[in-house]
Amino acid sequence: MKNIILIGSGNVATHLGIALKERGYNIVQVYSNQVNNAKILANKLDCYFTDSIDKLLDADLYVLAIKDDVTHQLLNKIPDIRIVHTSGSLGMEVFENKFTDYGVLYPLQTFNRNIKIDFTNIPLCIEANSTKFENNLIKIGNQLSEKVVIMNSEQRKQLHIAAVFACNFSNHMFSIADTILSKSDIEFKLLLPLIKQTVSNLTDKKPTDVQTGPAKRNDKEVIDSHLNKITDQTVKDIYRLISNSIIKDDD
Amino acid sequence: MKNIILIGSGNVATHLGIALKERGYNIVQVYSNQVNNAKILANKLDCYFTDSIDKLLDADLYVLAIKDDVTHQLLNKIPDIRIVHTSGSLGMEVFENKFTDYGVLYPLQTFNRNIKIDFTNIPLCIEANSTKFENNLIKIGNQLSEKVVIMNSEQRKQLHIAAVFACNFSNHMFSIADTILSKSDIEFKLLLPLIKQTVSNLTDKKPTDVQTGPAKRNDKEVIDSHLNKITDQTVKDIYRLISNSIIKDDD
Repeated sequence: MKNIILIGSGNVATHLGIALKERGYNIVQVYSNQVNNAKILANKLDCYFTDSIDKLLDADLYVLAIKDDVTHQLLNKIPDIRIVHTSGSLGMEVFENKFTDYGVLYPLQTFNRNIKIDFTNIPLCIEANSTKFENNLIKIGNQLSEKVVIMNSEQRKQLHIAAVFACNFSNHMFSIADTILSKSDIEFKLLLPLIKQTVSNLTDKKPTDVQTGPAKRNDKEVIDSHLNKITDQTVKDIYRLISNSIIKDDD
Repeated sequence: MKNIILIGSGNVATHLGIALKERGYNIVQVYSNQVNNAKILANKLDCYFTDSIDKLLDADLYVLAIKDDVTHQLLNKIPDIRIVHTSGSLGMEVFENKFTDYGVLYPLQTFNRNIKIDFTNIPLCIEANSTKFENNLIKIGNQLSEKVVIMNSEQRKQLHIAAVFACNFSNHMFSIADTILSKSDIEFKLLLPLIKQTVSNLTDKKPTDVQTGPAKRNDKEVIDSHLNKITDQTVKDIYRLISNSIIKDDD
């Protein structure tokens, strides 16, 4: 399985394509419905590109890295070649009755097109419809990463929800902090040691065991003074809801 | 100002006391209304302890590290000796008309009694009611940390709110993730590379610029499937509210 076609040209397709190429795989072609995006990634990977799903070339493996709803739309138009998707939230059963060998290769990471990333540390969650194809995927996985995990669709969906909280939502907390600080002429960088310590605490402790702050102390005076100072209604609602959730955890 | 009394025996008092002692300061006494806690910290710092606020010894500086509402209750009982509190949320004006030299020494960090911490990297926010006392505090600050910042009470309160989002609330996101994973027999450690990358992205990018996830893509199919899978009502409310906030940021 050396010849791979990427269906998608976003963050995941870009980083996965680069990592596969670096490990000696031959990226044959990139598909995107946005021809410019397909071209940009194809240039990086030195391969063909197309914006027409009817013009997919032959390959050993198709790798889908597109939005879940687009996957649904495209599946009927893709030939029966070994195929995986890379989505945390989509079950493997989307391929059922349409493909012979199918599975999932879900990299548990946050990808930004402009931030270089080392695939070696990225957990890769693998699922396949046969032991043989699972072994094929494990082989690719082991070349990409030191952390390959076999996981069924239901576990992967739960993992994806957990990842949304741990990554996407924590990053939004950082965004809100950034907005608050910029209004007071304080540089966001001042928070970095605090943020790094918060994460460092997780190395050998459970997050509930290292929870601190006004809500953890149920310090209503501080909570109320914060709520009084927050002007944005959504930010206020988030502050109240999360504080109550932390307080509830201690009941 | 070599002789210091700690009023409080919690996380901040413990770490600050240890750091001061390591830098050659003489901790004279620890006060706590819980005599056992006072004793434990006094043992660590090799000093006197008391649970009676009327029995504070003489010192060059009193350092308050107690809950804001307790600070209010105790202030009238503390003699007029140079004094600072360590609270992000409390203004300096609490000391007004009661003390001659007063100020704030706010360490911007999350403290857990059982996790050792290097004070050198902790931003110390300083405020004082006179230039002379400010200089005294800067001198102490510089011995404790490489990052001393002069900041007024209003800025410090905003910084504290930002810190609650960036540290306390992001940690609660990790807690929710942990709870979700443990129900599916997935180890929390699998998320650590993702969490570390999320923080690493902040080194030279703004958090809004590295936001990813279903809400960032406004991927309603995934958002709805996640909401359908989350059984805890509070967790569901948090998912919906934060997702909407991320979507709103992109409008």
